[in-house]
Amino acid sequence: MSFTEFPSRLLENAVNEFASLPGVGRKTAFRLVMNLLKRDADAVRKFGESIIRLRGEIHYCTICNNISDTDICNICSDERRDRTIVCVVESIQDVMAIENTRQYKGIYHVLGGIISPIDGIGPADLKIDTLEEKVKGENIKEIIFALSTTMEGDTTNFYLYKRLNKYNITLSTLARGVAIGDELEYTDEITLGRAINNRNLYQQ
Amino acid sequence: MSFTEFPSRLLENAVNEFASLPGVGRKTAFRLVMNLLKRDADAVRKFGESIIRLRGEIHYCTICNNISDTDICNICSDERRDRTIVCVVESIQDVMAIENTRQYKGIYHVLGGIISPIDGIGPADLKIDTLEEKVKGENIKEIIFALSTTMEGDTTNFYLYKRLNKYNITLSTLARGVAIGDELEYTDEITLGRAINNRNLYQQ
Repeated sequence: MSFTEFPSRLLENAVNEFASLPGVGRKTAFRLVMNLLKRDADAVRKFGESIIRLRGEIHYCTICNNISDTDICNICSDERRDRTIVCVVESIQDVMAIENTRQYKGIYHVLGGIISPIDGIGPADLKIDTLEEKVKGENIKEIIFALSTTMEGDTTNFYLYKRLNKYNITLSTLARGVAIGDELEYTDEITLGRAINNRNLYQQ
Repeated sequence: MSFTEFPSRLLENAVNEFASLPGVGRKTAFRLVMNLLKRDADAVRKFGESIIRLRGEIHYCTICNNISDTDICNICSDERRDRTIVCVVESIQDVMAIENTRQYKGIYHVLGGIISPIDGIGPADLKIDTLEEKVKGENIKEIIFALSTTMEGDTTNFYLYKRLNKYNITLSTLARGVAIGDELEYTDEITLGRAINNRNLYQQ
């Protein structure tokens, strides 16, 4: 069916809204809306309000730009975190991914994007000035660049390096190499080449 | 990432709501919510309200059970529709599918489901009594059974036939046969067998 005519404006509006989401076509949108129609009115009200409240009441941490329910996020307000190490990431998804490893005890700085001329995103669109101010004003010993291994990531790494190299701090990036569980046969040559050049001493 | 911990309750709630939709996993839900977060607060409010209003204000046509913004749907209130022919369908999606063909000028009766013992749906769960009352009380000449060609559809057809056969009306079903554009080679044998038995005179 091609949805040329809807029997109801309310239905049409809801389908249009869902179809505006990325990766959701009109048929999927219709299916989702029909599912909501079958639910309790209270449950649907909760659904709608969760979206409105999220957008209306969400905070971004004034220190690291991470998403938060309060002005300072859980990580920045945690006394046990090491404030001398700052991990620079593109987005809050990356904060969550690193947090899930439970390996990192420093704090974060969310850039809110990555330098990408093709998308019209330059350094001025990202939270780079505030990062430099932190480096100048606070007792930071190390900055970890934890950006994607793409051309945009490399560009951003290089730009950050140029901006921050003059300060007396360690600048590091995530280790690159063969992923755990990967077979060498199927590893791409650039990754494998770097993994050979950056080889580590074998530890038992 | 496995989302063991969210940096925000608001975010977690919204992701949980989206993940409750059919065919939407937690990663997709997160992606959709992040997309909403990037939008205007007004746009997101409109999104949320469209859902709440849909569920809260939608009507089901008191005549045919089709979805509607008013007590009587557009089709039932259209003076040009032929009220002597009633097309029986499972759901409002089917009404929309038939309407999109622009071939049908009668009215509808939406059963709200199909007889399916395995899902615990019997005749009493469907709008069959009201259909019979229509047949008794109104000037109906033909009832078209437009249900799926599944075992449940056949069962429902048979049940409806038993209930309505005693009234002096025509009972018909949709034509079954080889779909337009289908190649015979790939048509299943049951469809092809029926298409041969129910062959029509060739018309130029």
